[in-house]
Amino acid sequence: MFSLTVRDHTMVAHSLPDPFFGPAQRVHGATYVVDVTLRAADLDPHGVVADIGALARELRAVLADLDHRNLDDDPAFAGVLTTTEVLARTVADRLAGRVAAGGLGPDTRHLRDLEVVLGESPVASAGYRRSLRDGE
Amino acid sequence: MFSLTVRDHTMVAHSLPDPFFGPAQRVHGATYVVDVTLRAADLDPHGVVADIGALARELRAVLADLDHRNLDDDPAFAGVLTTTEVLARTVADRLAGRVAAGGLGPDTRHLRDLEVVLGESPVASAGYRRSLRDGE
Amino acid sequence: MFSLTVRDHTMVAHSLPDPFFGPAQRVHGATYVVDVTLRAADLDPHGVVADIGALARELRAVLADLDHRNLDDDPAFAGVLTTTEVLARTVADRLAGRVAAGGLGPDTRHLRDLEVVLGESPVASAGYRRSLRDGE
Amino acid sequence: MFSLTVRDHTMVAHSLPDPFFGPAQRVHGATYVVDVTLRAADLDPHGVVADIGALARELRAVLADLDHRNLDDDPAFAGVLTTTEVLARTVADRLAGRVAAGGLGPDTRHLRDLEVVLGESPVASAGYRRSLRDGE
Amino acid sequence: MFSLTVRDHTMVAHSLPDPFFGPAQRVHGATYVVDVTLRAADLDPHGVVADIGALARELRAVLADLDHRNLDDDPAFAGVLTTTEVLARTVADRLAGRVAAGGLGPDTRHLRDLEVVLGESPVASAGYRRSLRDGE
Amino acid sequence: MFSLTVRDHTMVAHSLPDPFFGPAQRVHGATYVVDVTLRAADLDPHGVVADIGALARELRAVLADLDHRNLDDDPAFAGVLTTTEVLARTVADRLAGRVAAGGLGPDTRHLRDLEVVLGESPVASAGYRRSLRDGE
Repeated sequence: MFSLTVRDHTMVAHSLPDPFFGPAQRVHGATYVVDVTLRAADLDPHGVVADIGALARELRAVLADLDHRNLDDDPAFAGVLTTTEVLARTVADRLAGRVAAGGLGPDTRHLRDLEVVLGESPVASAGYRRSLRDGE
Repeated sequence: MFSLTVRDHTMVAHSLPDPFFGPAQRVHGATYVVDVTLRAADLDPHGVVADIGALARELRAVLADLDHRNLDDDPAFAGVLTTTEVLARTVADRLAGRVAAGGLGPDTRHLRDLEVVLGESPVASAGYRRSLRDGE
Repeated sequence: MFSLTVRDHTMVAHSLPDPFFGPAQRVHGATYVVDVTLRAADLDPHGVVADIGALARELRAVLADLDHRNLDDDPAFAGVLTTTEVLARTVADRLAGRVAAGGLGPDTRHLRDLEVVLGESPVASAGYRRSLRDGE
Repeated sequence: MFSLTVRDHTMVAHSLPDPFFGPAQRVHGATYVVDVTLRAADLDPHGVVADIGALARELRAVLADLDHRNLDDDPAFAGVLTTTEVLARTVADRLAGRVAAGGLGPDTRHLRDLEVVLGESPVASAGYRRSLRDGE
Repeated sequence: MFSLTVRDHTMVAHSLPDPFFGPAQRVHGATYVVDVTLRAADLDPHGVVADIGALARELRAVLADLDHRNLDDDPAFAGVLTTTEVLARTVADRLAGRVAAGGLGPDTRHLRDLEVVLGESPVASAGYRRSLRDGE
Repeated sequence: MFSLTVRDHTMVAHSLPDPFFGPAQRVHGATYVVDVTLRAADLDPHGVVADIGALARELRAVLADLDHRNLDDDPAFAGVLTTTEVLARTVADRLAGRVAAGGLGPDTRHLRDLEVVLGESPVASAGYRRSLRDGE
């Protein structure tokens, strides 16, 4: 099994309005260091899992919708607790959508899954891993 | 599959009294950088794998029994080679015990497994991954 | 010259309301990784620059006033652009005040200066270095 | 499941002569930070996945054939695009060959698989994971 | 004293044709992780050492002349041993030239010096620090 | 001013027998990540601050006297509190002695000073900087 990982980051504000989150109920912020890993059983005809430049560009496009924003004001997250886990799934699902739409080229049948890990501090991170194949 | 990772560290002395270990047969020491990852198929009602503060607190409690000690003097390790692999399993099992005892709250049915990785230097680490579900 | 460095972090929201800052004019956030370095020409009677536990505790106290807050709502920053540089100076000055008040013990004459570096992302940081001696 | 990871690095030149790779068609270079992870269901009689010194030595031997070379001149890569993915597989396969030849000792039946991750920059890495057991 | 640091990287091939350099006499390569630090006694009217976006852009422009190249073919380095130290000075001097040409805006009188550190591997780096003021 | 930095590490046990150190009075241990930086106003005839291989070798020789030992048993530290600051000075002074004895070659007049930083954990380090020139 092959893997390819690219890193980027985004800086957002948000609040977690549930007493469960203690002081994080207040509006605060985070720099999320974002690692995206694609896994594939085989390489494509160019000997890669994916065009690393294309993967970086698609990730950047997904993060551009979060960058320098207060997620509390984003209708996409209305009524949603924007925990690091939820944000990891959001980034993964949006990126998977872009892959399905051809963002990494027309033929991605060799790709198996995608994992997004968001590091929120030097001591904490959360991630989400999902299939890139229909019906899984 | 979701994941949540927290990091802490502990500083211990020990020896590995078997000729296999060469100079590490002598009493020496290590700073272990400890990464604990919980994996879960679903999120809990608060949108998280676990309360990150609770996970950090339970890990700290496990590491407090190691901190600033000579493991050669710890009855729990009598007759045991305290290799990094063995220490990773020890931390994982003790943490799993605390999870089972309710340290992360009463309902942890969504949790699948737990992995502990101990970094002993910039160039070496060892880990142990185990299920958090009965019978696995 | 001796040095002692401790690391902690804080997660805040803020905005930079000046067209100069482009998208950072919006409310967003950051995880600041905070490195504090004390420099001293000599060691104290215990062979250290400072009690590392005391330094970590004093830094934590300074960061506790920032943690999980929107700096736009903090009267201490009214009318101030809370750039990373300004925040580094704020942390340094507040910490220097705590040192002067005895937070690291009664005798700190051997201490020369203090530097605070705030890492805002994997690719950017800013810092401030100041004397700990009167008249410098 | 246990794991053991060691890190080393190698500095090479190469080119990727396919228009797909844009500017990387030119002769350029990379420092690859190489992480090798062995996984095992059980520990050996010394309480380890493998002798960490032996694993580091075997990895060094594999990397010595790449160090300070232009891979374009290496017959082993004639007609091959030396992408990071391909190099990760090459290192993994060569290391697996050395394990099979006894480089980690005569009994490695407890070993399951081996993963090699090559970090080519702070923002990109690629890896290859393969079985160490016949017929898998 | 204030500081501002940005990070980028570049991937090059080169050789060091002097027996002093042993195996590095051969064509090989490196990923250089490039940290640029500006120091200033005061902040500019926007409360920063420099516009971080402008500094990152100017650094990128300097690195673009090195990216994905064999430095042995670059006339700028004809007859020059492109050691990490020499490359750090080259990047620093070129960046200082761009600052002098207005790359960070018209008024940079508050800037004191500039330091460039090139990390060539996890265990080695070299740097060059120079004044940004005339006659120093 | 030029700089050259190399990294290595050492794993030791020790105790700090003074009530000031709380639980660190017990025998415990540490992995010290050791960064050595040489500074020089000029480069040598090969375009470097020093032969990086020679510097790494000299540092390794200094650390070999500490590796896998209990410093409490080392006569060199009899009656000395082996704090991180003291160990940084010890490594720096021993390395300076080796430089003076020709370990980096016969001509080191261009070298100015040497700094040793010991990272004892992800959140704490200490260092010592000293001149390499007589009478300073």
